[in-house]
Amino acid sequence: MNIIEIIEKKREGRELSKEEIKYFVQGYTKGDIKEYQAAALIMAIYINGMTNQETKDLTLEMANSGEVLDLSTLKETIVDKHSTGGVGDKISLILCPLVAAMGIKVAKMSGRGLGFTGGTVNKLESIPGYQTDISIEKFIENVKEVGVSIISQTLNLAPADKKIYQLRDRIACVESIPLIASSIMSKKIASGADKIVIDVTVGSGAFMQNVESARRLAGQIIEIGKLTNRETVCILTNMDEPLGYAVGNTLEVIEAIDALKGNMPKDLESVVLEMAQNMAKLSGRDLSKKQIQEILKSGKAYDKFVQMVKAQKGDISYIENPSKFEKAKYIEDICVENEGYIQEINAREVGKLVRELGGGKLKRADKIDNAVGVIMKVKVGDRVEKGNALATIHANDLKMLKKAKEKLSKIIKIGDSKKETIPTILEIIK
Amino acid sequence: MNIIEIIEKKREGRELSKEEIKYFVQGYTKGDIKEYQAAALIMAIYINGMTNQETKDLTLEMANSGEVLDLSTLKETIVDKHSTGGVGDKISLILCPLVAAMGIKVAKMSGRGLGFTGGTVNKLESIPGYQTDISIEKFIENVKEVGVSIISQTLNLAPADKKIYQLRDRIACVESIPLIASSIMSKKIASGADKIVIDVTVGSGAFMQNVESARRLAGQIIEIGKLTNRETVCILTNMDEPLGYAVGNTLEVIEAIDALKGNMPKDLESVVLEMAQNMAKLSGRDLSKKQIQEILKSGKAYDKFVQMVKAQKGDISYIENPSKFEKAKYIEDICVENEGYIQEINAREVGKLVRELGGGKLKRADKIDNAVGVIMKVKVGDRVEKGNALATIHANDLKMLKKAKEKLSKIIKIGDSKKETIPTILEIIK
Repeated sequence: MNIIEIIEKKREGRELSKEEIKYFVQGYTKGDIKEYQAAALIMAIYINGMTNQETKDLTLEMANSGEVLDLSTLKETIVDKHSTGGVGDKISLILCPLVAAMGIKVAKMSGRGLGFTGGTVNKLESIPGYQTDISIEKFIENVKEVGVSIISQTLNLAPADKKIYQLRDRIACVESIPLIASSIMSKKIASGADKIVIDVTVGSGAFMQNVESARRLAGQIIEIGKLTNRETVCILTNMDEPLGYAVGNTLEVIEAIDALKGNMPKDLESVVLEMAQNMAKLSGRDLSKKQIQEILKSGKAYDKFVQMVKAQKGDISYIENPSKFEKAKYIEDICVENEGYIQEINAREVGKLVRELGGGKLKRADKIDNAVGVIMKVKVGDRVEKGNALATIHANDLKMLKKAKEKLSKIIKIGDSKKETIPTILEIIK
Repeated sequence: MNIIEIIEKKREGRELSKEEIKYFVQGYTKGDIKEYQAAALIMAIYINGMTNQETKDLTLEMANSGEVLDLSTLKETIVDKHSTGGVGDKISLILCPLVAAMGIKVAKMSGRGLGFTGGTVNKLESIPGYQTDISIEKFIENVKEVGVSIISQTLNLAPADKKIYQLRDRIACVESIPLIASSIMSKKIASGADKIVIDVTVGSGAFMQNVESARRLAGQIIEIGKLTNRETVCILTNMDEPLGYAVGNTLEVIEAIDALKGNMPKDLESVVLEMAQNMAKLSGRDLSKKQIQEILKSGKAYDKFVQMVKAQKGDISYIENPSKFEKAKYIEDICVENEGYIQEINAREVGKLVRELGGGKLKRADKIDNAVGVIMKVKVGDRVEKGNALATIHANDLKMLKKAKEKLSKIIKIGDSKKETIPTILEIIK
């Protein structure tokens, strides 16, 4: 077997064998296969596609390319969740304690912000003291005792996926359905998931720009799930405007705390309930959305969150009294100049704006400012009158504040006719 | 403009602009564009193809990436010739002096052996003293005085093509029609050609394995010729068995000397006459094949060859008396075991066998043994009786000799029925 023959085969659109995929993934991870050879193969995969069998083989080979989290001591079916990313996405903060409150153990490794999207780990780290990099032993212990723990990826999970992803990014091969699907699933499998619920976001603030491509991605993910014995459910959700109202690490934590008490924006609630119901189902529990809402209202989910924060050495006084969170220096509203209906709030643009305010990284060395961000006051379809507040900007720099106000005024588009709204839950694919 | 966008465009099968091709070729040659990015783009080109316009732009950009031979002092239309490579191909040695004998100046830069094929430069270097690396000034002076000179590529011609070709070889992207066509034409243009006759070889001993792909390559070459104002004629020739009888540097020079006196195998003669007639035509001279044969018989072409060798410091006593050439230690015939008709003599296998005997390089550091090789005694379609000689092997190593005899006996396939022969000139495309 040699890499030239493997490239040639895929170049001609033929199916690679399990052994050939293994040869590529292992050789590339070790550095025996050159970057340019991997680039040629990946471009051939991008253009000619991969069969479900190939995608499964690639997924498992990448999953096994590094450490694999062993959660067998939990003696339970591990149901994991994942999101393909979005703006204002604080789902994990609410969903994980909620599911734990149903008695289902949640052992979750989360990521940091990428591009214009925020990361669950960054959000948790805005809680003073919260440790995301605890040892695996402590992580498992927390899951056993509290029922839920969210940490960062401390293990060397799926290094092959990481290397391939970085290369894809530099050769215009990111938007490939089989490559995205195998990347997601390899990480989930490496982090010990037995069953998975995936929020496949769709729209301006998401990887997938339209329902068709999201549906194709979901279909490919489901197939990988079947072939790897990881039952998977994909929930297609609207990410055309930010999810909920808050965007920015601390602001999102505060919104999540409110949500854990049962007060949350409709769109956020739809996603949380749908994901929770499906995670419960995969754990063998049939719960109605109403029952899940009751768990939220009972305070049990909130309690789990507080216990989790405490177990990870976070200062729970901030959770109990969110006004303690350090505020940005400048907090200013932007207001409606011409009455009408909200037509569009481009989530990607909002994400970029918050990153520019300091809420995310533009360069690797940048420090994240947790206090900054935006709280939207409106949703697409809302009626607004002159003088109404559209959003509040939280900034730590006067120049930035000014710039953000200008930009956000343009991002929030107002028109004369009522804009028809899209449902938050677009489709469920299993 | 950036390389990611260029890769993306070609990935989607869209046409690259002249500026984008320039950006890629210049950036890659300079090293600003990474190997892996070039690899991804080339694979996308391989799979999605290129338009004639793109192929022309790539050709000119590669042609101008290094030195360009200036033959303007010759004050003539420069007609060049090229072959896509073969086994036993000594055409240049015969054709160039022949065309010079018609009064047409021939300034030719030739290549060395590549893979299983021999190179004109290696053949010439088997003539003691012959200098292939004379200065450009001396080269032009020789062309002016003698009418013909053949040298090696002493200039840094089309370095972009060289770099791209090396990459293609390592990422399974060699067999791309637009990339082969632009590679050939960029080198011809850089070496000063105004008009070009190309021998597009077809068959086991050639790049192109069948007439269809050769026709496609020729068509693409003709298009580039039109778009770059380099009138080009492609002659598709059969390279399923070796051309002529001799394979091996010295053995081919001896066969060429004989040919220059008008004695040559039919297949070799067909190609020489066809190429010569077309080169003459492109120079504005209409000559019949009979007239060209007469030039050969007159000894004028032979004289030009002797003058050329002399001008390049070669020892012409070897040309005048070819028995002076150093012979291999072992010269042995292989004979027919079962009578019948010759069915096949795989040219590629013969080329590999001669390389193994030491006639070509397997590794860069290998030294070439000019004396070794094979002289075929038969052609496909010939009738042979038990005991007839099939070929003579010239070897300098007893073990090699034995191995070569075994191999060659298998390469020359004999069967009961008369095999229909293919004409040597398959098609002329202009």
